[in-house]
Amino acid sequence: MPDFHSPDSVGVVTPQTLHFGEPITLACGKTLPVYDLVVETYGELNADASNAILICHALSGHHHAAGYHSEDDRKPGWWDSCIGPGKPIDTSRFFVVSLNNLGGCNGSTGPCSINPETGQAYGPSFPVITVKDWVHSQALLADRLGIRCWAAVVGGSLGGMQALQWSLSYPDRIRHAVVIASTPRLSAQNIAFNEVARKAITSDPDFHGGRFYDFNTIPRQGLMLARMVGHITYLSDASMGEKFGRELRDQAFQFGYDAEFQVESYLRYQGERFSETFDANTYLLMTKALDYFDPAYEFDNNLATALKRSSCEFLVLSFSTDWRFTPARSEELVNAMIAARRKVSYAEIDAPWGHDAFLIPTPRYTDIFTAYLDRVAREVGA
Amino acid sequence: MPDFHSPDSVGVVTPQTLHFGEPITLACGKTLPVYDLVVETYGELNADASNAILICHALSGHHHAAGYHSEDDRKPGWWDSCIGPGKPIDTSRFFVVSLNNLGGCNGSTGPCSINPETGQAYGPSFPVITVKDWVHSQALLADRLGIRCWAAVVGGSLGGMQALQWSLSYPDRIRHAVVIASTPRLSAQNIAFNEVARKAITSDPDFHGGRFYDFNTIPRQGLMLARMVGHITYLSDASMGEKFGRELRDQAFQFGYDAEFQVESYLRYQGERFSETFDANTYLLMTKALDYFDPAYEFDNNLATALKRSSCEFLVLSFSTDWRFTPARSEELVNAMIAARRKVSYAEIDAPWGHDAFLIPTPRYTDIFTAYLDRVAREVGA
Repeated sequence: MPDFHSPDSVGVVTPQTLHFGEPITLACGKTLPVYDLVVETYGELNADASNAILICHALSGHHHAAGYHSEDDRKPGWWDSCIGPGKPIDTSRFFVVSLNNLGGCNGSTGPCSINPETGQAYGPSFPVITVKDWVHSQALLADRLGIRCWAAVVGGSLGGMQALQWSLSYPDRIRHAVVIASTPRLSAQNIAFNEVARKAITSDPDFHGGRFYDFNTIPRQGLMLARMVGHITYLSDASMGEKFGRELRDQAFQFGYDAEFQVESYLRYQGERFSETFDANTYLLMTKALDYFDPAYEFDNNLATALKRSSCEFLVLSFSTDWRFTPARSEELVNAMIAARRKVSYAEIDAPWGHDAFLIPTPRYTDIFTAYLDRVAREVGA
Repeated sequence: MPDFHSPDSVGVVTPQTLHFGEPITLACGKTLPVYDLVVETYGELNADASNAILICHALSGHHHAAGYHSEDDRKPGWWDSCIGPGKPIDTSRFFVVSLNNLGGCNGSTGPCSINPETGQAYGPSFPVITVKDWVHSQALLADRLGIRCWAAVVGGSLGGMQALQWSLSYPDRIRHAVVIASTPRLSAQNIAFNEVARKAITSDPDFHGGRFYDFNTIPRQGLMLARMVGHITYLSDASMGEKFGRELRDQAFQFGYDAEFQVESYLRYQGERFSETFDANTYLLMTKALDYFDPAYEFDNNLATALKRSSCEFLVLSFSTDWRFTPARSEELVNAMIAARRKVSYAEIDAPWGHDAFLIPTPRYTDIFTAYLDRVAREVGA
């Protein structure tokens, strides 16, 4: 039973919306004239603003990473297992900032926001956003919050890409980058899965070319399919087997096409729930940001050359059964860091849950994460 | 350049349609009053009908396994690499039978056939077919062809399940079962991917509950998505990387949602082509046959107990990078065969192409396959 009274919970938190009145120019060449970012913070910023940690979210994440939104709230933030007093990201020592990224659908300016120039939802006219754009907007957020240099930027999966990009875009504004269950760039298979998700959404007749808001509908089936495919890639074969096996919902085969095995109804339920809460245009945008991320690209495909721009220290973590971003992809990153003579700590955590393991506290994961951030805290006097 | 004149080609072949006038009762309890099976044969049946090999096809396969349908035909049958004079399944020694399974969409009776009782296409009223049903219908086909005992039943993937089922359903009618890139039952992850494919098809508005024939349309988008997902699972991450990498179709990022990476346009092309040629109801039926296959189920989930019914010898082959049906799944099968004290030869072939490797001749694969079937041929005096 989650409990906001628990001594290791950040308790009830209130998101705040920060308005940015200056235009931001994006990698695609387009400009957003104004935009909002929704932010939650946990803990206290110290006097020299040296104890700030930025949390970067993954594909379907948002600003609500820890704590509860009200006393009646039954579900804590998405990374509550790692953020709180005494937890790896210890809010009694660090000032933790968590935002909903630009292009998101949880309050920050995104495709479902009103375009001030037209008075209508951006929809498909919202620019494609890259990881670099996010990091740029996060740097402007840091300025606003009075944070010149992050003690650490931390993220899993797509969030890890942002942490990595921070080390390259603003080497003097980040002391540590924690890159968890991530990759320096997607493989062809990763892109292929994203393309299936996008095609499912865009081929749904209710998508209306991204203008579904105007038709008072949502591409429910397409989003559901996208999430179902995604979900399979987040879990390991073994953990799905452990969780569902070949269990039937009923006693015997039905010889029909209703959900029959437990895993089928679970996936349908996950997909349906997601389709009711997530914006389809944001989903497209997030998958595209994943596809495009490739910091080596500008450096003749040499990741080590790219990493020479960084000056922070790195913690890289991978999970043994993650087949979305395998430990081999993290090792690729670590090897490039070593070749670039950067300081890096690396661990492959043995965990059965596939990619999702980065959200699940296990002793070795928690121990390494805690020990590393304890060192960071001591460095910055927190 | 394929060539029907080549000495190792079976040349130009003509499929034949065999009509079965007696009703067949299926595992689901329903009965088909009459049905057709489309068949190709290669080579000559010997005097004592001891040299016959049955080829069982996989999800999207059909009867056209080898040779060409005309002198203008540019593409040979789907397993032409393994079937022909001097090839592993040597048609100068064996009489090879290849059929389109019941429920298929290449000429055998299936959902797009006319139901003689209504004068309309079966559509969604076509019964769900199981692997056991296929083997039953294949036994009736063997009767028709005067084959009492197969020298071998051979299949890859879903075809391997049929070979395995033959050893259990008709132990005295099969001397050897060759089970390639297969599994004794699907994992939860396998079922999950099938469910995504089914959901993509059934949620396409052009599916019309399976009655799309009446609306003069096909669920093009759904079938395309189903095939795209399937295709990803047939290839390895490495082979996709090798084939496409992160190559762009154009020189630079487009910052839009058209197919941009080579892998995206390849997948879309594969999906579109497939959606024009394959029947959606057959696709549903094939995935369901996969899900249901589980010979251990009736034997208290003990595969070894199930295998005690068999009396043939087995060749089991797996491929190192197959993540759809991993070598571990084949080893599960082999271990059960050993526990049941059956004769089994097993090899894991090192090949980079994932599940599709069973269709691609490589020296070690070809050598083992050839040597095994050479022994079979000598056994039956062929």
